[in-house]
Amino acid sequence: MSIDILIDRIKEKNNPSVIGLDPKVEYVPKYIREKYYKEYGTNLKGASKAILEFNKALIDALYDIIPAVKPQSAYYEMYGIEGVRVLHETIKYASEKGLYIINDVKRNDIGTTAEAYSTAYLGETRVEDTMHIAFDSDSITVNPYLGSDGIIPFVSACNEHKKSIFVLVKTSNPSSGELQDLLTKDGEKLYEKTAQLVDKWGRDSVGKYGYSNVGAVVGATYPNQAIILREMMPNTYFLVPGYGAQGGTASDTAHSFNKDGLGAIVNSSRGIMCAYQKDKIDEKGFAEAARKAAVLMREDIVSNIK
Amino acid sequence: MSIDILIDRIKEKNNPSVIGLDPKVEYVPKYIREKYYKEYGTNLKGASKAILEFNKALIDALYDIIPAVKPQSAYYEMYGIEGVRVLHETIKYASEKGLYIINDVKRNDIGTTAEAYSTAYLGETRVEDTMHIAFDSDSITVNPYLGSDGIIPFVSACNEHKKSIFVLVKTSNPSSGELQDLLTKDGEKLYEKTAQLVDKWGRDSVGKYGYSNVGAVVGATYPNQAIILREMMPNTYFLVPGYGAQGGTASDTAHSFNKDGLGAIVNSSRGIMCAYQKDKIDEKGFAEAARKAAVLMREDIVSNIK
Repeated sequence: MSIDILIDRIKEKNNPSVIGLDPKVEYVPKYIREKYYKEYGTNLKGASKAILEFNKALIDALYDIIPAVKPQSAYYEMYGIEGVRVLHETIKYASEKGLYIINDVKRNDIGTTAEAYSTAYLGETRVEDTMHIAFDSDSITVNPYLGSDGIIPFVSACNEHKKSIFVLVKTSNPSSGELQDLLTKDGEKLYEKTAQLVDKWGRDSVGKYGYSNVGAVVGATYPNQAIILREMMPNTYFLVPGYGAQGGTASDTAHSFNKDGLGAIVNSSRGIMCAYQKDKIDEKGFAEAARKAAVLMREDIVSNIK
Repeated sequence: MSIDILIDRIKEKNNPSVIGLDPKVEYVPKYIREKYYKEYGTNLKGASKAILEFNKALIDALYDIIPAVKPQSAYYEMYGIEGVRVLHETIKYASEKGLYIINDVKRNDIGTTAEAYSTAYLGETRVEDTMHIAFDSDSITVNPYLGSDGIIPFVSACNEHKKSIFVLVKTSNPSSGELQDLLTKDGEKLYEKTAQLVDKWGRDSVGKYGYSNVGAVVGATYPNQAIILREMMPNTYFLVPGYGAQGGTASDTAHSFNKDGLGAIVNSSRGIMCAYQKDKIDEKGFAEAARKAAVLMREDIVSNIK
């Protein structure tokens, strides 16, 4: 099971955290930006190339202490076709360094089109009698609003190609409750209904550690909901955004872990990528600053697991 | 308002239908496929180039009788970076022919990341003191599961850059009801709660015809829900998938229109793209077959509007 690979890496590094690679070009140190603007122009290509060098340096500084990275597709798509290319060069580079890749794309669509997305990110694309990988990753995020026939194609691809997905259940943003917290007639909230589906979708892919290939996104900013969800989905791995910049604390994230010390992986993006800006150190020390911040985060998360 | 541009084109062509460009390479006539496999190889690039020629020929055959096209991003992403390039070359070509472009990407994320997506598809990306268009279109589809702060960045981009969005409300797939039809404690279903939000999000962008830049996706396969939703969102344009291949009839789509004869645009993808396969005519006649099917669809939809 793909989820076993993630858990093996978390255990090896003793680190249940994932670093988000969500790089606006403004986050990239000026000396790198200027180098690429000079070579390619102050345009989408120059910005994308600068982001790639930034990402690679971050990966070099972090890969021996973290199990996974989570690039956020939106921050690459905003740089157009060159940005999308850099997303996949980043994924390739991180993968070669042994990192588990969660591509945060939040794709969703009806059945046949969900199949096309699962082919694009988790499977293989047929061209006549040949098979090709479009965009490679170990895992993607998906949105459940369309129900089972929008998710099952992804689950099938996970089981066929040793991949995993994380389904949005309770997201970390302030207005996530507008729909997700709606109380249904039978006394359960919408996010609990989603949780029941996630539990069901994962039932046939539980691996050696007791977790399935179908994970859930549960925001650190909603610790009370995490307690309920942890109980409802005992076999589901949680991807936990919202730690740090968004206000979630390590003690908040503790609720997303099971008694086995597993069951959750906590994300931080800007807190690591932009540590050099926050600490106001020389921009050439950005990668070292990121490593220090990642070590502190690991200690913070691990020491709070009950 | 961007929605006015769409409505103007619907009125000019007297045609409230949109052609979905969702091309698997298998849909492309063999003589086109073979030409590009020979030139680029039987691979993702060869497939993508074949799809581009297919799309352009369809656009050439249709642009004078239809107001809009709706490429489905999944079917391009499955061909990797070359596929994404062809999506945007298709969009550019269709736009030059005067068609309104609804890029069906169903993007969604929390606030800051929703901003990045809205920049990518509806706005402009900043690189230092210069602004650049990443991926251009007139409109995109978005998913509401994350609530207002996941949608408002798109609404702002619409109002700033003369664009529109269509928010998933009640989708056309068989299991759409699993979450969307859940009855909430106060007697309304989830899709009705979403509809109330859509109505609210669009309130500040109502154009000359009484419709807002914030549209809704309402499947033709659920005519009874369409009746309710039409009443709840009088100022909202509906994008109606599910006609034809998925089983929705023109009489089903009629419920999505208002008494002004406006308020909805009905999508067909395979029914038009693959008309030549269904009619079993020579594959060189694919574009003409698509045009014939589009004319029949227009007559079918228009004659059923009450």
